[in-house]
Amino acid sequence: MKHPGLWKMFSAALYMTLLGCLQAQELQGHISIILLGATGDLAKKYLWQGLFQLYLDEGAKGHSFSFHGAALTAPQQGQELMAKALESLSCPKDVAPSNCAELKGQFLRLSQYRQLKTAEDYQTLSKDIEAQVQHKGLQETGRIFYFSVPPFAYADIARNINSSCRPGPGAWLRVVLEKPFGHDQLSAQQLASELGSFFQEEEMYRVDHYLGKQAVAQILPFRDQNRKALDGLWNRHHVERVEIIMKETVDAEGRASFYEEYGVIRDTLQNHLTEILTLVAMELPGDVSSSAAVLQHKLQVFQALRGLQKGSAILGQYQAYSGQVRRELQKPDSFHSLTPTFAGVLVHIDNLRWEGVPFILMSGKALDERVGYVRILFKNRAYCAQSERHWASEQSPCLPQQIIFYIGHGELGHPAILVSRNLFKPSLPTQSWKEVQDRPGLLLFGRPLSDYYVYSPVRERDAYSTLLAHIFHCRKESFITTENLLASWVFWTPLLDSLAHEVPRLYPGGMENGHLLDFEFSSGQLSFSQQQPELLVPGPGSAPRPSDFQVLRAQYRESPLISAWAEELISKLASDIETTAVQAVRLFGKFHLAVSGGSSPIALFQQLAMGHYGFPWAHTHLWLVDERCVPLSDPESNFQGLQAHLLQHIRVPYYNIHPMPVHLHQRLCAEEDQGAQTYASEISALVANSSFDLVLLGMGTDGHTASLFPQSPTGLDGEQLVVLTKSPFSPHQRMSLSLPLINRAKKVAVLVMGRTKREITMLVSRVGHEPKKWPISGVLPHSGQLAWYMDYEAFLG
Amino acid sequence: MKHPGLWKMFSAALYMTLLGCLQAQELQGHISIILLGATGDLAKKYLWQGLFQLYLDEGAKGHSFSFHGAALTAPQQGQELMAKALESLSCPKDVAPSNCAELKGQFLRLSQYRQLKTAEDYQTLSKDIEAQVQHKGLQETGRIFYFSVPPFAYADIARNINSSCRPGPGAWLRVVLEKPFGHDQLSAQQLASELGSFFQEEEMYRVDHYLGKQAVAQILPFRDQNRKALDGLWNRHHVERVEIIMKETVDAEGRASFYEEYGVIRDTLQNHLTEILTLVAMELPGDVSSSAAVLQHKLQVFQALRGLQKGSAILGQYQAYSGQVRRELQKPDSFHSLTPTFAGVLVHIDNLRWEGVPFILMSGKALDERVGYVRILFKNRAYCAQSERHWASEQSPCLPQQIIFYIGHGELGHPAILVSRNLFKPSLPTQSWKEVQDRPGLLLFGRPLSDYYVYSPVRERDAYSTLLAHIFHCRKESFITTENLLASWVFWTPLLDSLAHEVPRLYPGGMENGHLLDFEFSSGQLSFSQQQPELLVPGPGSAPRPSDFQVLRAQYRESPLISAWAEELISKLASDIETTAVQAVRLFGKFHLAVSGGSSPIALFQQLAMGHYGFPWAHTHLWLVDERCVPLSDPESNFQGLQAHLLQHIRVPYYNIHPMPVHLHQRLCAEEDQGAQTYASEISALVANSSFDLVLLGMGTDGHTASLFPQSPTGLDGEQLVVLTKSPFSPHQRMSLSLPLINRAKKVAVLVMGRTKREITMLVSRVGHEPKKWPISGVLPHSGQLAWYMDYEAFLG
Repeated sequence: MKHPGLWKMFSAALYMTLLGCLQAQELQGHISIILLGATGDLAKKYLWQGLFQLYLDEGAKGHSFSFHGAALTAPQQGQELMAKALESLSCPKDVAPSNCAELKGQFLRLSQYRQLKTAEDYQTLSKDIEAQVQHKGLQETGRIFYFSVPPFAYADIARNINSSCRPGPGAWLRVVLEKPFGHDQLSAQQLASELGSFFQEEEMYRVDHYLGKQAVAQILPFRDQNRKALDGLWNRHHVERVEIIMKETVDAEGRASFYEEYGVIRDTLQNHLTEILTLVAMELPGDVSSSAAVLQHKLQVFQALRGLQKGSAILGQYQAYSGQVRRELQKPDSFHSLTPTFAGVLVHIDNLRWEGVPFILMSGKALDERVGYVRILFKNRAYCAQSERHWASEQSPCLPQQIIFYIGHGELGHPAILVSRNLFKPSLPTQSWKEVQDRPGLLLFGRPLSDYYVYSPVRERDAYSTLLAHIFHCRKESFITTENLLASWVFWTPLLDSLAHEVPRLYPGGMENGHLLDFEFSSGQLSFSQQQPELLVPGPGSAPRPSDFQVLRAQYRESPLISAWAEELISKLASDIETTAVQAVRLFGKFHLAVSGGSSPIALFQQLAMGHYGFPWAHTHLWLVDERCVPLSDPESNFQGLQAHLLQHIRVPYYNIHPMPVHLHQRLCAEEDQGAQTYASEISALVANSSFDLVLLGMGTDGHTASLFPQSPTGLDGEQLVVLTKSPFSPHQRMSLSLPLINRAKKVAVLVMGRTKREITMLVSRVGHEPKKWPISGVLPHSGQLAWYMDYEAFLG
Repeated sequence: MKHPGLWKMFSAALYMTLLGCLQAQELQGHISIILLGATGDLAKKYLWQGLFQLYLDEGAKGHSFSFHGAALTAPQQGQELMAKALESLSCPKDVAPSNCAELKGQFLRLSQYRQLKTAEDYQTLSKDIEAQVQHKGLQETGRIFYFSVPPFAYADIARNINSSCRPGPGAWLRVVLEKPFGHDQLSAQQLASELGSFFQEEEMYRVDHYLGKQAVAQILPFRDQNRKALDGLWNRHHVERVEIIMKETVDAEGRASFYEEYGVIRDTLQNHLTEILTLVAMELPGDVSSSAAVLQHKLQVFQALRGLQKGSAILGQYQAYSGQVRRELQKPDSFHSLTPTFAGVLVHIDNLRWEGVPFILMSGKALDERVGYVRILFKNRAYCAQSERHWASEQSPCLPQQIIFYIGHGELGHPAILVSRNLFKPSLPTQSWKEVQDRPGLLLFGRPLSDYYVYSPVRERDAYSTLLAHIFHCRKESFITTENLLASWVFWTPLLDSLAHEVPRLYPGGMENGHLLDFEFSSGQLSFSQQQPELLVPGPGSAPRPSDFQVLRAQYRESPLISAWAEELISKLASDIETTAVQAVRLFGKFHLAVSGGSSPIALFQQLAMGHYGFPWAHTHLWLVDERCVPLSDPESNFQGLQAHLLQHIRVPYYNIHPMPVHLHQRLCAEEDQGAQTYASEISALVANSSFDLVLLGMGTDGHTASLFPQSPTGLDGEQLVVLTKSPFSPHQRMSLSLPLINRAKKVAVLVMGRTKREITMLVSRVGHEPKKWPISGVLPHSGQLAWYMDYEAFLG
């Protein structure tokens, strides 16, 4: 997804789609709509009603329609089932009851059941449609196939449509698909490829019915119509957080076979909540009615999403769930499901607009209320001089400022858009949204309803009827393109994989949940606010902390040895470095620190970046002990580790950072570029006496240190301060400080961690000064101090 | 203050102080306390009572005391006035009424009035004390002189004490000084030098009575005793904001002559609120009872304070103030004071602990309530899965989390420390602080009192009696050292200077103020939330915005000219650059931008940093068009401007930043270091075809561009891509891209701003291709586009 070339292809494809779309729409010919799965639940509940609505809206404008309910059921029985489904059709409120019966009659006459099983069935259907169109003396405008069937049936149907039921030239084909669109990245990719072999991208309409919900569908128009007010507000400087929430009271009973396979993340987060996220976060296109622009900007959001890790989510499962699965799937009593029915996920968007703003996605079953909303909470940047008793909701900048897209249900009971009165008076299309009266006593998001401008739809409309209209009008932005779908799976799959064996927290369900599912985030990690009840410890600070453990102090090679468990060791080393730094800055105005590469220092860098507020970074010079001969931006570069884990979190002036010049004149460590000499003279010039305040080393399992390997012809003695060396490990070419230079340092700390170091640690404890064999044994500052930091695993094993 | 050498001197001085202090305290000899200004208001109201308390506390421990009330008044009359002041002394509650009269009698017998005017008076006092001590057969422990007199009297008194009234060897001298300690940096420095010529640093105790208030004095002990709970919380990751507030209902009536000279910032912010700030913000010393450590850590806070600017403050003045000044100072009717009686100031601390956390200081007279507090509000990092109706104050992480040091008054009515129950249960010394009962109906900081753990002092104690005890016990950390004082003035004086002619917002006073004084901050700037009533515009977005103005498009030197007012021009240029960048990244995966130095680009950098969230910085390479031959960290360096105004706000990878190598081998632009050639080959290697995507140029009043000056022997033609040049302006040595290189760019934008450019703009519009005379006339990309961005001042004048 990161390749910019994709964008071009994408745009071109979209352009074609839209062109085809506009041409087709002008014709007022005949449209056939084939509802596959015409007698199923979704069809009964929403789709037939939506098609009736479409007929009422568009039939009146001169379009001719026929509706074909299709299923595998034999004609006679199918006809009966379908008739039943159609019985309950109702007219919208604005149709006079006297007209309703007539309109319904018209619609029923245009709707017929048809068994669709074989390729021949599809051929017959196609011929019938052609005959019907001809009979009416019309042109065919297009055909819509609505797949309200399980995904395993997709391929067969798609093949049959493609081979036997495409409309003739000049008429369009649209196929409408319902989720699930795969189970992870791979299966989604496979399904997409399969469908892609039968249909063009522009022919496919993947439904996420949340995009048809009125409050969701209004997000972009709202952002567009309130551009002036929102322009300055819709960014990390003003937004405190975004919550995208879908709470259900129902549980999965009766749907366990589906739910057990999918779980809450696949069921609602990967699709509904992610789609909403993109609508909130995307850069607003100049023209929000341009499908191409909207879809492209949505994709850009996916590109900027920070990858999720295990710690980005918390999972729950209502207690009755496993029992339901056992019953419905005939599992043994010993079976316990790991499928989450509740999830909270923290999403970050790494672009300049949203960097640092937490997007909280949460969804769950068996919760205390049914409600869905998107809440944008703004930062409170005000101080109010008057006592809070006198704050007025329209005027006080100290009261919460928020915008809520209320999807539905909850205490309000209907879709709405709420804007805090101290923010601005929003503009909404008056023909479709109206202001709502106050309901005294109703508190929403901490404030009485009267604190908000509240708008609700003039006419509540079902999501499916909205989406059917959008399919008809070719409004692609309300549907999930293949790229959109795959981008979403690329984002979610690693998290799903990492959580596959995670045990969700059990919750009783409903009001009983109490604070059990509350969660918090810090440093990008999510965790439940309450510890598991059985682990609860009384009061704060009473759990043992690293500092409660004793750090072992001893001698190693006649120098001080500090030994502890890894975490505590790193913490001790970091604090020793800070002490040294503060001292150096106090005495000399600066601190020269040379650091090694490798993995052990990473934990140290993180500790220094996050836990040491008094560190005098502005006066610290950072040098490298050694470097691999790769470009600085290469993931293998030691400098890259320093950049990712330390530099980007702190503020060291650019000119205090001294990467090794391994990459000069576009070559890597060429002798003739004199990189080593350049670095040496930089050191001589800036570091008094070429004596670093602190050199941080590691020790390899072969006894190497810095990039000075056993038998190295350079760097172990002699005059040179910086040398080129060869490593037995790839990348072989290295640049390194020499032992003589290291030994000029005021302090040298050797950090040794992990079980793999146990043998060399034992060995080196017994050898004398033999740098040719074990370079580490040559580390002994002439007049400075040497200290060994070893974790228990390295030291005690 | 930035020089580390100061620290050493300071520490040494403190060490001496404390040493002297400890030795002296061990002796239980005679102490003489001389209260200068013994019949004044402060003495009557607080000081005699404080001395009585000191006598009760310490007299019982075997110390011998004498109290000398002194003033200029003649003995007889002074004696009478003092007797009156002493009449109202009261015993603390824990003294039985039966004992009280006796204790009071003892104290009165030890207290005598004395006229102190001349050097002889002081000599006599000294001799009398010596005689008294001898008579009692005691050693003299020390003398305390309490200066409760106007500052103009300080010098004379100090001289007399120093020359005629010092105790003999082995006994200490302590002088206690009351604010004001100067009016600004200069006067404070002068006063300090003067006092320093008479007293040692360790002899002086400057009182800020806020440091004696119980809730303030508890800040450090609280931080210390709750270290475990606070360790992880007391930093920028968790603290949302800190409010340090002192509201008064009284106005300045009757004190206009003092107030008119000082105003609210000098009266309360420079001292009380700043002292509190340091207590909250300082790194907590390992031992908070060490005066030396506390004072040193306080000073470190001053070092880290970000400089204040005009925009850091908002000012108000209650409407009746000018009238009061006219009456009390006999000013004419036309007189209107500019002295602020209300101020809000936004302080930032630029260290890693507090970076980005707003410290809001606010103080004012004639407000709606009298109250003082420090409020630390923590960030809300939680999401609560349960409906808010069911949040429980002890458990819910979604309710506000705050710690409040309630100094006094307000709705609570007494000093207190409040900690939100969902945070932790604090530990406080049980002998001096007790838990407070709930008061139903009382809301504090948005929450009922029952949401907090609330502690108040077991015994309320006046600040002066606390401070007198601290003087006696040599607890220097409760007083303002000279360095502390000067550091505070160094911090406040530039703001005071910049606000000297600022017109404060008038406010009616009391409840009438409404929301008039509410203020907000953004990007470090403070502003009133409401516009001045007469300027109020209805609704948001209705004020004209830059984008409402037309940008003028025309031609200049046969290339497109974009002209507008400065702000709009910068905004247009920034958005054109972003468009170019997005396009380049889409097509080639990266964007090569070369920028000029100077002042015009600074506004552009700021605009790009703050307003362009979609800018593809991660794929942008930044090059310099020209550079001055100074070290990169020099304030004159073009790179330094780029670093300060752009780089530190955005995230460009280290290796995408390409400063010009003007500083190689510790030399500046030496020919033999081949810096220009190095830069040229870096460009050739990384920039395809050496053709930058965009070069941003300026134009000098002499027609120079980049660092290519008229008649330059290099850079105007030829093969060289990068050249060394000479500027007629200092620093003379420069490095610059050459005209031939510039003209290879795909786009060149020339930004010309300001009135001083008018003439050259006119001239250059008429000349042909004459780069030798006017280098700018040689800018004409071979196959790229050239565009001129000129503000109206440069273009139309």
